[in-house]
Amino acid sequence: MYSGFFSDNCAGVLPEIMNSLISENNGFSRPYGHDQTTEEAKKILKKHLGDAEVNFMLTGTGANVALIASVLRPFQGVICTDTAHINVDECGAPERFTSCKLLTVPSYNGKLTPEDITRYSHCSDFEHNVQPAMVSISQATEAGSLYTVDEVKEIARITHENGMYLHMDGARIINAACAMNKTIGQITGELGVDILSLGGTKAGMMFGEAAVFFNKQLAKDFKYIRKQSMQLLSKFRFVAAQFKRMFEDDLWFRAASHANSMAAYLGRELENIEGVKLSSTPEVNAVFAQIPRKAVDEIINEFGFYIWNEKINEIRLMTNFATDKKDIDAFISKLKEIMKK
Amino acid sequence: MYSGFFSDNCAGVLPEIMNSLISENNGFSRPYGHDQTTEEAKKILKKHLGDAEVNFMLTGTGANVALIASVLRPFQGVICTDTAHINVDECGAPERFTSCKLLTVPSYNGKLTPEDITRYSHCSDFEHNVQPAMVSISQATEAGSLYTVDEVKEIARITHENGMYLHMDGARIINAACAMNKTIGQITGELGVDILSLGGTKAGMMFGEAAVFFNKQLAKDFKYIRKQSMQLLSKFRFVAAQFKRMFEDDLWFRAASHANSMAAYLGRELENIEGVKLSSTPEVNAVFAQIPRKAVDEIINEFGFYIWNEKINEIRLMTNFATDKKDIDAFISKLKEIMKK
Amino acid sequence: MYSGFFSDNCAGVLPEIMNSLISENNGFSRPYGHDQTTEEAKKILKKHLGDAEVNFMLTGTGANVALIASVLRPFQGVICTDTAHINVDECGAPERFTSCKLLTVPSYNGKLTPEDITRYSHCSDFEHNVQPAMVSISQATEAGSLYTVDEVKEIARITHENGMYLHMDGARIINAACAMNKTIGQITGELGVDILSLGGTKAGMMFGEAAVFFNKQLAKDFKYIRKQSMQLLSKFRFVAAQFKRMFEDDLWFRAASHANSMAAYLGRELENIEGVKLSSTPEVNAVFAQIPRKAVDEIINEFGFYIWNEKINEIRLMTNFATDKKDIDAFISKLKEIMKK
Amino acid sequence: MYSGFFSDNCAGVLPEIMNSLISENNGFSRPYGHDQTTEEAKKILKKHLGDAEVNFMLTGTGANVALIASVLRPFQGVICTDTAHINVDECGAPERFTSCKLLTVPSYNGKLTPEDITRYSHCSDFEHNVQPAMVSISQATEAGSLYTVDEVKEIARITHENGMYLHMDGARIINAACAMNKTIGQITGELGVDILSLGGTKAGMMFGEAAVFFNKQLAKDFKYIRKQSMQLLSKFRFVAAQFKRMFEDDLWFRAASHANSMAAYLGRELENIEGVKLSSTPEVNAVFAQIPRKAVDEIINEFGFYIWNEKINEIRLMTNFATDKKDIDAFISKLKEIMKK
Repeated sequence: MYSGFFSDNCAGVLPEIMNSLISENNGFSRPYGHDQTTEEAKKILKKHLGDAEVNFMLTGTGANVALIASVLRPFQGVICTDTAHINVDECGAPERFTSCKLLTVPSYNGKLTPEDITRYSHCSDFEHNVQPAMVSISQATEAGSLYTVDEVKEIARITHENGMYLHMDGARIINAACAMNKTIGQITGELGVDILSLGGTKAGMMFGEAAVFFNKQLAKDFKYIRKQSMQLLSKFRFVAAQFKRMFEDDLWFRAASHANSMAAYLGRELENIEGVKLSSTPEVNAVFAQIPRKAVDEIINEFGFYIWNEKINEIRLMTNFATDKKDIDAFISKLKEIMKK
Repeated sequence: MYSGFFSDNCAGVLPEIMNSLISENNGFSRPYGHDQTTEEAKKILKKHLGDAEVNFMLTGTGANVALIASVLRPFQGVICTDTAHINVDECGAPERFTSCKLLTVPSYNGKLTPEDITRYSHCSDFEHNVQPAMVSISQATEAGSLYTVDEVKEIARITHENGMYLHMDGARIINAACAMNKTIGQITGELGVDILSLGGTKAGMMFGEAAVFFNKQLAKDFKYIRKQSMQLLSKFRFVAAQFKRMFEDDLWFRAASHANSMAAYLGRELENIEGVKLSSTPEVNAVFAQIPRKAVDEIINEFGFYIWNEKINEIRLMTNFATDKKDIDAFISKLKEIMKK
Repeated sequence: MYSGFFSDNCAGVLPEIMNSLISENNGFSRPYGHDQTTEEAKKILKKHLGDAEVNFMLTGTGANVALIASVLRPFQGVICTDTAHINVDECGAPERFTSCKLLTVPSYNGKLTPEDITRYSHCSDFEHNVQPAMVSISQATEAGSLYTVDEVKEIARITHENGMYLHMDGARIINAACAMNKTIGQITGELGVDILSLGGTKAGMMFGEAAVFFNKQLAKDFKYIRKQSMQLLSKFRFVAAQFKRMFEDDLWFRAASHANSMAAYLGRELENIEGVKLSSTPEVNAVFAQIPRKAVDEIINEFGFYIWNEKINEIRLMTNFATDKKDIDAFISKLKEIMKK
Repeated sequence: MYSGFFSDNCAGVLPEIMNSLISENNGFSRPYGHDQTTEEAKKILKKHLGDAEVNFMLTGTGANVALIASVLRPFQGVICTDTAHINVDECGAPERFTSCKLLTVPSYNGKLTPEDITRYSHCSDFEHNVQPAMVSISQATEAGSLYTVDEVKEIARITHENGMYLHMDGARIINAACAMNKTIGQITGELGVDILSLGGTKAGMMFGEAAVFFNKQLAKDFKYIRKQSMQLLSKFRFVAAQFKRMFEDDLWFRAASHANSMAAYLGRELENIEGVKLSSTPEVNAVFAQIPRKAVDEIINEFGFYIWNEKINEIRLMTNFATDKKDIDAFISKLKEIMKK
């Protein structure tokens, strides 16, 4: 079975990244991130992020959870969409590790609106209610949509006005930055994001994420929380080496650009098939389409993908840095054949 | 500064392991461990472990904590030495994630005695006390010592007799198995160990550990706990590839053997220096020695290592698969020079 | 300010209950519930509940949280309405103490439907999702509504069919039993409820609740969880004495009956005021009514109550065992006066 | 069986306290501590405590745990003796609710020494270790001993010097204050105690404790933590009424004085029996004595008490406000009879 459409993380590792791992394997080094490569990688990342404190992490869930834990206390809550990764796909890790409650709002197209931010304002100062203290948005969202620069700015403004912090889940931040033709810093810290989970694995690394504090005061105790969240790798320099390579030139941009353009291509091709309805024009590297159930059943075993919404026969197809146009063509060709029947 | 003596994890990656990572980078694959390499790695590990359920993990702390969480409930406790890694070196991750209490006993040479196991028996059935439900021992211990086959057997017997489970922290289990000239299974599951944290990183991998259930009933819900403990890597096949390579021939044994023999050599050399007192004959890859404070102060900046016990001027020197005899010789030579002054 | 309409718990203590406390103060006794009165109270409660294991508790939140903690593991979740007390009014205590996630469904009139129970079925066996394992309903609900006998039966059937347990938050279970003219057992354990939080404080006690296990196997470790949840009172016999008195004759019924009939009376009176809209006919001891904002503003300082839904100017008025008809008349008279203006 | 020696909490309620409950049962009131009696009780307590923020609680474990939770973050730890109530007798509630680790030191006679406070200083700033951030001492201690004014002062000084906070578990603080002939404030806040668990139940109340902040900045978010710790009683005014009565005149002192003097009497009587060894002269209301095992076995069923240390046949006998000299005489007489055999 072709498994390249399941998720961005079905791909392996960018060749340049693999080479960086080979080069890093050059003798002894202080463990736990107290090494030269880590320093260099942080320096390079700052060129993209601006003045921020960067901590390497192992998993996206780890980055999200440890960031929440570093900022909130257990009687506080995080406002997020009901479709947010932290709410749906982390098996309750945020609640278990941070004890905080996720205060969900129904999402439209994966996005949170400025109005949602004050949805829990009546809870403030009332001892019976969890205290809203953070807003978390995903960029790009789990639904493949993008917040515009102005939308993030406005969300940040209202979030701060209400005495809360803004977290961004950036598992696919490179796809967003590429699509918006901005640096990562320009769509995060510069717009008022306080803390960012910066994705590496989906971008084309073997493993590794970063927990970024634009609001550096919040980072004070992060090293303890990173260790406690079981994210402190002894040979962390191998994560640092990957980040260093990914961001020392435009590798990240090329990787994201390929993924995004493959999704655009796949979307256009799907749109042209009669009986197939594109849920929305792909903004990054995700394609959502509604396809008759019978066709889905026939094609899913040859080309793996997720059924996103059973009720409306919506499927999700992800592209990534390694997606081959030929595989898309094969998928489209097969689907056309089935749809004709 | 030479940093090879700090810890086993100061080394990089075994060349064979690095090659396995390169080979694994071969196209798309189902993420989260639902891949072919993971299946193959598990099959190979079973040859070493016997009939056991294996789950790959990211960090040693992650393996220890998730294993405890999978077996105990929050009002139960783990009996361990006061020097155990879970008690001292995991920043409270066990307590935070599992809510369980560590019921410590003073250790002699890093080891727990059969008597220690019943030290908390009076707590049983008394609602005011945490209920002892697990015993955790490290093999090799944090003090570089080894439990004999008979000692583990006896500990397992008493542990089970008292209705508890036996966990083994095997961050350095390959060093133990090598020193005892046994397979890993022969010094763990066969002796009554229920659950094992099987170390990969210190053995010479880039990253990756395994949570092993010899008592397979205990593994029922482990997949949720692994995800919740932020240890579920999307590209987990790259951990599997390393384990597969490490154990498909005697690579693990050669790596451990080198580390152990280098420690033995270092120990012998230190013993011959007047004024230096070896704390004990190295049993695996750790050397503990008492050296006059003045000498320590002079040599520590050139050769990094931990000061283990300030009161008795005891230092710890670790060796690993990559330790170069020349570096030991340089260290010894320098130390002799200082001691002569 | 008259504060009797705020909540059922604005009242003091039933005189009979106060007398039971005075009688209980009769010398020494074994602490922590190992006393004679506790045994007697449990025996009496069984006449109302059937064969169930009863544990006394201190607060309603304590009963709810400890019951969830005794049944679920931290990667599991509780399906409940978004308006459930455990979701809204316990400041995140369930998440903090149990680590479990509350899987909410939008409620209609405070109630959960049979369809809601399978709303999270797609999560089962998928390691990324919290595993639904319990359904929690409140009887009477936070919206003052009642589940019928058939509704609870059907919810219990589907809950068990899906391998989950049924919890009932019975902070106002006596009001429900009275309104339905049933024993408590007939509307809980007999219908398939596995665990019940049985309210005492709102019923007219000074303090004290009970955690009831109809499914007695689930109670195995409850004593540790009760202690850990900080609910183990040393002089627990004073809680037992109150329960014993409340249920040794029909005191509970008379108390509930008065509260319910006062709400019915208040509802009828409100209904007759032009411009006031009763949200629904009171089923137990809660009255929800929509009153023009201006009138609310004028009357709220003389008669305290909660504004329930600001958007529709809905207020909540609670009655209890001590509600005096005269106070209702005074309230109605004042409101009529204001509404005429 | 006579059960008056088991614990201070085997007694019922002081008659004056019972009367205060009866008086408090006088109509409606705002729930959750927003009532007049609560205000009055706090005012009265301040006369004893000085300028402190007082919050009522339900159990001693609740007060200890919520206080720790309000000050520490989950990667921090509490230095306490291995015999501390929080370490031994709270079934792991501190670890479960706060996620903090208890950093124990061996105690001598239940007390912690100034040297113990720096026992974990090497952990500071090291990400692998739990960060020591609080010192907790019990006054009187679980071993029935007392810290002198100078000892507490010195402990407070070193605690603060090391950037930590000082907590006092005052379950028996009235016995201590009485024995030292001081106000509670003089042996707590005035000596540098930051937070105090002020015991009510053991003092002669039916139920109720207080969480006291001398360092008022630490109290900022306590109301949320109190609710989350399941300690927020709706009819909290009945706790307030008891505290108000206990401290509006010298009732607390008389209660403690009686308990202490009964212990002194019991101690003297025991001392005069040949073959009985008093572990130490009673300082408050606890008597520890070593009695031949055979005698213990004979008398324990008639007069209940705890066997404290089986190895040395040490038993613990507690006295309280209600202890009757006749019961002591009966116990002594019986014991003499047995010892003669």
